Amino acid sequence: MDSGLSEAGRESSPLPEGATPQDAEYMRMAVELARKAVGHTSPNPMVGCVIVKDGQIVGRGFHPKAGEPHAEVFALREAGKAAQGATAYVSLEPCNHTGRTPPCSQALVRARVGRVVVGTVDPNPLVGGKGVQTLQKAGIKVVVGVEEALCQATAEAFFHRIVTKKPFVSLRYTISMDGAVLRSQGTTSAEAGSNYSILLQENDAVIVTDKCILGNPKLLSSEAGAKQPLRVVVAKSLALPLDSHVFDTSSAPTLVITDANAISTDLQSNSRQSAESMESLLRSRGVDVVAMNEVNLDAVLDLLYQKGLNSVLLDSTLCNIENYLGPLALSEQGPQKVVAVISPVLVGNRTDGPGFQFEDDNLKLERVTTKTCGGVVIVEGYVSKRPVT
Amino acid sequence: MDSGLSEAGRESSPLPEGATPQDAEYMRMAVELARKAVGHTSPNPMVGCVIVKDGQIVGRGFHPKAGEPHAEVFALREAGKAAQGATAYVSLEPCNHTGRTPPCSQALVRARVGRVVVGTVDPNPLVGGKGVQTLQKAGIKVVVGVEEALCQATAEAFFHRIVTKKPFVSLRYTISMDGAVLRSQGTTSAEAGSNYSILLQENDAVIVTDKCILGNPKLLSSEAGAKQPLRVVVAKSLALPLDSHVFDTSSAPTLVITDANAISTDLQSNSRQSAESMESLLRSRGVDVVAMNEVNLDAVLDLLYQKGLNSVLLDSTLCNIENYLGPLALSEQGPQKVVAVISPVLVGNRTDGPGFQFEDDNLKLERVTTKTCGGVVIVEGYVSKRPVT
Repeated sequence: MDSGLSEAGRESSPLPEGATPQDAEYMRMAVELARKAVGHTSPNPMVGCVIVKDGQIVGRGFHPKAGEPHAEVFALREAGKAAQGATAYVSLEPCNHTGRTPPCSQALVRARVGRVVVGTVDPNPLVGGKGVQTLQKAGIKVVVGVEEALCQATAEAFFHRIVTKKPFVSLRYTISMDGAVLRSQGTTSAEAGSNYSILLQENDAVIVTDKCILGNPKLLSSEAGAKQPLRVVVAKSLALPLDSHVFDTSSAPTLVITDANAISTDLQSNSRQSAESMESLLRSRGVDVVAMNEVNLDAVLDLLYQKGLNSVLLDSTLCNIENYLGPLALSEQGPQKVVAVISPVLVGNRTDGPGFQFEDDNLKLERVTTKTCGGVVIVEGYVSKRPVT
Repeated sequence: MDSGLSEAGRESSPLPEGATPQDAEYMRMAVELARKAVGHTSPNPMVGCVIVKDGQIVGRGFHPKAGEPHAEVFALREAGKAAQGATAYVSLEPCNHTGRTPPCSQALVRARVGRVVVGTVDPNPLVGGKGVQTLQKAGIKVVVGVEEALCQATAEAFFHRIVTKKPFVSLRYTISMDGAVLRSQGTTSAEAGSNYSILLQENDAVIVTDKCILGNPKLLSSEAGAKQPLRVVVAKSLALPLDSHVFDTSSAPTLVITDANAISTDLQSNSRQSAESMESLLRSRGVDVVAMNEVNLDAVLDLLYQKGLNSVLLDSTLCNIENYLGPLALSEQGPQKVVAVISPVLVGNRTDGPGFQFEDDNLKLERVTTKTCGGVVIVEGYVSKRPVT
């Protein structure tokens, strides 16, 4: 039975030829390093690098943020001459093109490393195996695909962005233990260590609706050193509570997306003054306001892609996001991942309205994991039939 | 926040005064022994016993089934003279009354053990602390409440039976990842190691409906040495498929419960012959048939209690059991535990009919645990506000 479930969390990938269990261990260290920059690297991926010589770690590095050096550069810097003949472990194929920084494949060649172990190749058409080729041409032994699933998952949002030209979307919602979709009992509290706080750290943006902010959530991660997400409020009108936490842009940026027609209706109905002044009041607080001719998920994702975001959290916990963005077409567009928060209650008669409507029925989820966290059960899974990598 | 969740499965109970972490370890061994008889002991509880002298285990025992000796007797037998001055670990307070076997408290006194560590006291009014008193009067040191939560959970069905005069009920159902109650996609396949196979081993009976058996499930556990549950089929009429696996009573007993009025309607409508012959055909296959004036959960549980059962699995996976037994009143009567099987699919538009109706809204669940098992996510929880012990 193909369960699509990993029984004990993330399974190790099978080792490729020429790789040892020790290689897998160093690769997991490289991934751990990569994840130190979680939330900070968009539009780049998280990448980590470990350099090992004679069984000793002589260099470590990770990519801290776009515009700064890549993981390999930091690791080679720390290793110095010890890099000669050493093995470099890189969670993602070294880049081979000159972007904001010079190519890492050539840096590894110049440092005369003896062997490079790559977690996963880069789907970026500018790289696409060329980094590996450069290394091999220079006579360096290369092994590809050590802890491949883990490395792919670490770069999943980046990969998705490169391939689809859309950010990677995680849909979050709350259901009761007997399956009722809960709106009123969802939570946007983000205590440190909670699943929500971690999601806000991991994602470059969180999308909510004007209805959601009536509960005055902060939508800020409590994780130490977290880069706060762009808070995107999809609003049916600009009649918004200005004193909401979400419009305090001192700790995180905020973007209000609203329907141009709705505003023009406002204008016709003699509230031109208030709509205009509300927009300028929002702007004076540093809030970005975008009016769209048609507000839908596609348009919102296009905008966020153009802003360089890799990942967004579509938070339907406190409101029916479909009333704002239309049915979520999971097979073509829409969420790549679902995060179901299962509240430990039985509600029996479902008073919170209908459940989700997807354009496709009966979509299978894969790589499903589950855990208890902060008073609820979290079940996460990836939507199948869609290219994740 | 009182989450009602144990983050990493079952938490150890705090140690009572006079107990050491080593005591807790031996008690966990006693529970492991107790569970060797899972499914076999009703109407008695599972009990395990370990006897330790000078850091060595000198005796082990568990209660194999009603009518056979208790755990302490087997452990004392193995220990022989080594029991003198030893510490006995018993998952449940030793009995103090002469039932089918002589009292264990006196056996421990006679064996001159020096100390008895008890997992949990017995709620049975015939025992109720008297076992502990007998030991203490004989000068034996007694510590009560080591791994108490674990020991109570091991005896939960027995405790519930004693206190409420009803078997302990677990309600099983399947929901999709987006909360739709699934009937058609539920499964009654019980491969070895699957959650369903283990539930069929743990429970003394499984209750399904005539609709469910149209899929011809066996309703047999595949665990090695499992005592098979009584298969209870609640039927709207006796027009049943006789060649169903469930009517092959060579591997497990089967009980058909039907509505006396429904049969009498059958009789009036000229099917007297067929109803009578069906009943005798079922009986000739060793199937028990009971006609009730009113079929409801209460009446069914009373009958199963009288049959000496501790635990029943109310399996609503393949059918809406409420159409047969009425709404499930969780706070007063009805399931003590829910087992939600979460199928890793998104169904979107809910075509499988309405969800559950409970007489009480918004019941909290406690001691919620989650795991992935055989292709699905299992979330289990206990219904709060009800006496479990």
